[in-house]
Amino acid sequence: MTTKAIRGTFFDFTDDPWKHVGDEESSARFVSDGLLVIDDGIIVAFGDFDEVGPLYPDVSTTHIEHRIITPGFIDGHIHFPQTRVLGAFGLQLLPWLQKWVFPEEARYADREYARDGAVRFFDNILASGTTTVQAFTSTAPVCTEEFFEEATRRNMRVISGLTGIDQNAPDYFADTPESFYSNSTALIEKYHNVGRNLYAVTPRFAFGSSPEQMQKCEQLKAEHPDVWVNTHISENPHEIRGVLALHPECDDYLGVYEKYNLVGPKFSGGHAVWLSDDEFKRIHDSDASVTFCPHSNLFLGSGLFRLGKATDPDMRVRMSFGTDMGGGNRFGMLAVLDGAYKVGMINNTVLDGSIDPSRMNAAESERNKLSAFRAFYSITLGGAEGLYIDDKVGSFDIGKEADFVALDWKAGPPGSDWHAELIADGGDPVTVDDAANMLFGVMIVGDERAVAETWVMGEKAYQRADAVASTFARHFDPAL
Amino acid sequence: MTTKAIRGTFFDFTDDPWKHVGDEESSARFVSDGLLVIDDGIIVAFGDFDEVGPLYPDVSTTHIEHRIITPGFIDGHIHFPQTRVLGAFGLQLLPWLQKWVFPEEARYADREYARDGAVRFFDNILASGTTTVQAFTSTAPVCTEEFFEEATRRNMRVISGLTGIDQNAPDYFADTPESFYSNSTALIEKYHNVGRNLYAVTPRFAFGSSPEQMQKCEQLKAEHPDVWVNTHISENPHEIRGVLALHPECDDYLGVYEKYNLVGPKFSGGHAVWLSDDEFKRIHDSDASVTFCPHSNLFLGSGLFRLGKATDPDMRVRMSFGTDMGGGNRFGMLAVLDGAYKVGMINNTVLDGSIDPSRMNAAESERNKLSAFRAFYSITLGGAEGLYIDDKVGSFDIGKEADFVALDWKAGPPGSDWHAELIADGGDPVTVDDAANMLFGVMIVGDERAVAETWVMGEKAYQRADAVASTFARHFDPAL
Repeated sequence: MTTKAIRGTFFDFTDDPWKHVGDEESSARFVSDGLLVIDDGIIVAFGDFDEVGPLYPDVSTTHIEHRIITPGFIDGHIHFPQTRVLGAFGLQLLPWLQKWVFPEEARYADREYARDGAVRFFDNILASGTTTVQAFTSTAPVCTEEFFEEATRRNMRVISGLTGIDQNAPDYFADTPESFYSNSTALIEKYHNVGRNLYAVTPRFAFGSSPEQMQKCEQLKAEHPDVWVNTHISENPHEIRGVLALHPECDDYLGVYEKYNLVGPKFSGGHAVWLSDDEFKRIHDSDASVTFCPHSNLFLGSGLFRLGKATDPDMRVRMSFGTDMGGGNRFGMLAVLDGAYKVGMINNTVLDGSIDPSRMNAAESERNKLSAFRAFYSITLGGAEGLYIDDKVGSFDIGKEADFVALDWKAGPPGSDWHAELIADGGDPVTVDDAANMLFGVMIVGDERAVAETWVMGEKAYQRADAVASTFARHFDPAL
Repeated sequence: MTTKAIRGTFFDFTDDPWKHVGDEESSARFVSDGLLVIDDGIIVAFGDFDEVGPLYPDVSTTHIEHRIITPGFIDGHIHFPQTRVLGAFGLQLLPWLQKWVFPEEARYADREYARDGAVRFFDNILASGTTTVQAFTSTAPVCTEEFFEEATRRNMRVISGLTGIDQNAPDYFADTPESFYSNSTALIEKYHNVGRNLYAVTPRFAFGSSPEQMQKCEQLKAEHPDVWVNTHISENPHEIRGVLALHPECDDYLGVYEKYNLVGPKFSGGHAVWLSDDEFKRIHDSDASVTFCPHSNLFLGSGLFRLGKATDPDMRVRMSFGTDMGGGNRFGMLAVLDGAYKVGMINNTVLDGSIDPSRMNAAESERNKLSAFRAFYSITLGGAEGLYIDDKVGSFDIGKEADFVALDWKAGPPGSDWHAELIADGGDPVTVDDAANMLFGVMIVGDERAVAETWVMGEKAYQRADAVASTFARHFDPAL
């Protein structure tokens, strides 16, 4: 057993800040000088350095100074084989898939291409502070294999699965219900719960899976009840009409997944932009989950996720946030928080009653405001709860896996350094509010340049290059 | 006379790409191996290296390789004294001004603070590729003076003016009609058309100026007909109601500025989110201009600018794009293009008829799509036309001032390097479409890290630090 410790300033969550309106700091845990003790990648002690330190007098300790250490970020919805085609121009969901996505994803049937893509994919997410993803792959087993193989080499907690589509896709890309079933079965047996890998039965979306393929999903979940289920739901109005035309017996989009007994714990529906109140209620009642992907929803013109509705205390749904890279045009969760904040605020143009007083909803409007508490909760503990992995990751609780990020709140784009000096007189955070203000700056004024180090299972997996690590300097030199 | 030349790959515009639907490249000028010849900061020759080079056999030439050189970016709407408080949490326009903005702007009455702020402000915009701004200042003449003084030291083409507000502001910040008039007069005489400085009579917004202050604006413009007029218009529904309550004799927000004879050439109305069709028409008819500030409109929850409406060929309005830093949370125009693309796409969720077929408008929907051509036109030549400075800057036409940016399309956040290799086999752009695809990647997958060099009047004013200049490297090292 190898024991080590990290000393530094820690910030994580013990509860949902949406439950603490007006008192959000009570959901957070801020330890200005703390010690995190790790045995074989697992947290065995955590607390004030003065209290925990004496219990481990000889432990090898890394002191990470002038950083805020948070749990590693969790991306609930990302497409591994779209790594290269993120940010493709000009189309909404369905034609975008045909023109840009399927041709690129098809290349991941080639093992060498898939392996190269996997190295780049994990490089990119670690450099963005992300330590856990729930990822879509493609129809080719090779793509899913290389995803899990690279995740295994990095020892990362991931959820993924062969991504089935047997209709509304080009022939060269579509699979069949039979191939999807047999390949999924083999992949579950090879990867599920092996190391830190978790398997999700993954019908791409109801528009892409025939009733026969949906039946295979139901069968797989019945045969392997421990696996996850990951898919898309109600992303785009055209898509929704297409789904209901294909499944006329269902009243709404969620009804399709319900029909095949997929909706329940460990089910994630990505996007959920156009869910009715009744669908939100049924997701709540079944303890299923949705994923909010703001950049994608904006970039593809899908619509505005109702954050304040999803967090209604009477029917709070489990929720993770996701990049949805490549429908989303950024790799990291800090960028997602910038987009999520804006979606919440734009929702409030309506909900504050300033346009149509009859639509005023002050409580929902308040819940749309993505404070730093709500934001960082959503990409750590909240995301873990959304993905049913909060027993494993998402906070610094004893027994969890030691995935974390060291954030440098002064590093970022032009303007971020002076902005950061507004807080705590330019020094380290003294209070939980200092830390929250710095983290708000990181997500709104900053970007992934704030990610100084990313650690996985107690091992450093990414370190920002030194040169980039320096805060933004004044480049103007009249002598140039 | 000092003559010099820049050799490289150039991309600028000779026309409005919105006039060339389906054939946008005909609005652009792409010179894969070009020469830009500069005399005392002014462009005296431009074209293919093979044609122009022999005419200047002995000219001192800087060869900028593996970059796309565009005209310097033009920011039509930015608040100089908000440099430090960009990205402040949680409020819409009117309470945001009271809580965050007025206290910070008041500090710019202190000359030392204003001077430090000005150095930082210009450092930040140059590092973002911006060479021209139309800027708001504060009520203190010192703030405007220090802005123009620093712009003069940098020799930059700027538009600015004392920013008056005599109501709906705290006592410590408000000015009076009389002080606004006398201070504006002195500043016009001292700075307007001195060096590259241009003066704008700047009532902050109709909600903040009494009828008496508006009359002073009218008087200033009548006494100095050559000056610009810069203000805000129709940003937020609450604000609009406030304006109409203060000016009950006006039918709409634009009507207030019309009443005081301010609307015409050289008039810029920032935001213009909630303009009626009739107001757009009157702005078109009067040859006035609006500024699109997408990040601010999202960040403050103001609303969605109707890009496709503003570009209606039957009533096309002059238009610049702006950061609106600090209501916008990013300093640079490349970030603005990312936001502008998303606003256009989200507008189309309605205009494509997918929600309500009666609202379908295919032509307006098409105009909402911000291609790389439309995007880079809007922050160069289009912005210059919007600000009535297209005789001075915005393209590489002979006689214009040599402000330009060298863009490195492979540098940016995680993911941008591999994405860039999709185009031109990873090499330099060969065709105008290659260049446009690279520029789309810069604005959507990249950010201001693509700005390798910024030149002002033929002199290098910013160079990216070498370390940052390297393209994103794979940081994952199992040995770490």
